[in-house]
Amino acid sequence: MRGAVFHAPGDVRFEHRDDPKLINPTDAIIRMSATCVCGSDLWDYRGINPVNEPTPIGHEYCGIVEEVGADVTTIKPGQFVIGSFYASDNTCPHCQAGFQTSCQHRELVGGAQAEALRVPLADGTLVATPEVPDGALLPSLLTASDVLGTGWYAAVAANVQPGKTVAVVGDGAVGLLGVLSARQLSAERIIAFSRHEPRQKLAREFGATDIVTERGDEGVSHLQDLTDGIGADAVLECVGTPESMAQALRSTRPGGNVGFVGLPHGVEINGTELFHSHVGLRGGPAPVRRFLPDLIDLIWKQQIDPGKVFDLTLPLEHVAEGYAAMDGRRAIKTLLRP
Amino acid sequence: MRGAVFHAPGDVRFEHRDDPKLINPTDAIIRMSATCVCGSDLWDYRGINPVNEPTPIGHEYCGIVEEVGADVTTIKPGQFVIGSFYASDNTCPHCQAGFQTSCQHRELVGGAQAEALRVPLADGTLVATPEVPDGALLPSLLTASDVLGTGWYAAVAANVQPGKTVAVVGDGAVGLLGVLSARQLSAERIIAFSRHEPRQKLAREFGATDIVTERGDEGVSHLQDLTDGIGADAVLECVGTPESMAQALRSTRPGGNVGFVGLPHGVEINGTELFHSHVGLRGGPAPVRRFLPDLIDLIWKQQIDPGKVFDLTLPLEHVAEGYAAMDGRRAIKTLLRP
Repeated sequence: MRGAVFHAPGDVRFEHRDDPKLINPTDAIIRMSATCVCGSDLWDYRGINPVNEPTPIGHEYCGIVEEVGADVTTIKPGQFVIGSFYASDNTCPHCQAGFQTSCQHRELVGGAQAEALRVPLADGTLVATPEVPDGALLPSLLTASDVLGTGWYAAVAANVQPGKTVAVVGDGAVGLLGVLSARQLSAERIIAFSRHEPRQKLAREFGATDIVTERGDEGVSHLQDLTDGIGADAVLECVGTPESMAQALRSTRPGGNVGFVGLPHGVEINGTELFHSHVGLRGGPAPVRRFLPDLIDLIWKQQIDPGKVFDLTLPLEHVAEGYAAMDGRRAIKTLLRP
Repeated sequence: MRGAVFHAPGDVRFEHRDDPKLINPTDAIIRMSATCVCGSDLWDYRGINPVNEPTPIGHEYCGIVEEVGADVTTIKPGQFVIGSFYASDNTCPHCQAGFQTSCQHRELVGGAQAEALRVPLADGTLVATPEVPDGALLPSLLTASDVLGTGWYAAVAANVQPGKTVAVVGDGAVGLLGVLSARQLSAERIIAFSRHEPRQKLAREFGATDIVTERGDEGVSHLQDLTDGIGADAVLECVGTPESMAQALRSTRPGGNVGFVGLPHGVEINGTELFHSHVGLRGGPAPVRRFLPDLIDLIWKQQIDPGKVFDLTLPLEHVAEGYAAMDGRRAIKTLLRP
């Protein structure tokens, strides 16, 4: 088969790779229906995360099950399934607590920008749709694999509640779907930080009530003005830099919460400042598996349309162009069709 | 009147001070029934917090109202009242959200190790007991002013729930009353970190089911053994050092919570480590006022006996000895009687 291989910063190639095979009896092989490029892939692409050898890349996927191992009991060939970037058994104490990305037997799923993929722990990882979906639903279903699940977790970790005021730091696909999630969780007011007009427009379509274009101290000051000096009840941090974390913490009211899902790079949190803020903080790789059944259901019933975050669709073989477009901010998120 | 004045590290003196007077119409003056020395006073006493001039000290208090300002409507002369270290109006948005120590009009209450005290914002700050208490209840009622309220907040911030496993880092008065609070909140298992036998004994009396004597990585390892490698659901951090914070975070299961109430000194939290831990974190100066009515009720009905943390009682004029005994770990906490 063919798939994307990361060679060096700025150098992603579409090339021949070995066909995936069942390794463990709990594995499944899926034929990819759609995959995409993640904001976190750009950390590699930009050389911020060092990668030392050619590496298959991609971790967002949905497709048709081709083959399952002998111990797989609930997932069947022919089903359309969605999974997430960590395979999980969904039975260990951490899975049962809803933190499947801390599963005691977790395995990273990699190399998903390809025609086919091996998924470990298939029964615990994959969720099947009621039937094979119409092609029009594919983009939205694909978001459930990561960006929607991650934005949703940010909202849950930030304790978004009905009637409350929410702020979202970061206008990438995760931040935009954090806006959608906060709206679904019945937030009354959703303040999106964004300087880019197409993203502002999408944020409003997803439910943002206010846009703040400033960043840093000026952004915080604008938000405080909008909230009568109180701050937001819940803030979603969807970037991962020291500046974005500081902006999130200072936008939150005492007793409020920050949910942080941007992979931290160089973030140090001052204990004294956090103490006096009274702000609660929870982050982590999103346990997407916890939310997958509900998210699939919302998409299946067409109650949400998160697939709008894809503003560029390319054949999988043009994956390199997909990276370049996102790196240059010409695209919010690139969908790839095998 | 006479009261304690902090002059320099190791130098607390009992000396003449001006009688407190009403300054604002929302003030009350109370005649002290009992006061005490706080673990956080020791930060000054040990020279870790610089203090530049002679300063009246102490912030835990209960006593009889002598006089109230013209705008005080609910607190009356003759009542026995308890307040906390921050005066609060108890009406602003932060107070209404239960974070009175972030009150928009908060004022620090200081100089409470004295015969009398001015308390600002009396209606919002002070809570009266049903009647003037018997002397035997004084120690327990005094703990509600800070250490009990702070231990309780640590347990609430750590989301202690019925049936769950709790760990407490720090065996000072706050940590010990964190144990009591976790027991009251129906935790099933309470693991106290303590190396000091008298404190271990008190921890067990307050409800600890397990004692871990090791600290740091060894302590974490022992706790992980006790919890089948899962970690505690809720961890109370009651010290405030980088070591105690690391121990608390690493003792917590993914998805669990740390409540931190030890005033942080030099604590920096690595964002990447916090991210991957999935641990939730909330701290701050305890909003004792939120809990005061319920804590007074529990004490009044003699359902809890937090006053046991006082293992040294001295006349107020011997306040210097009270500090020295706590500094030398000869006493857990010193009660002072005017």
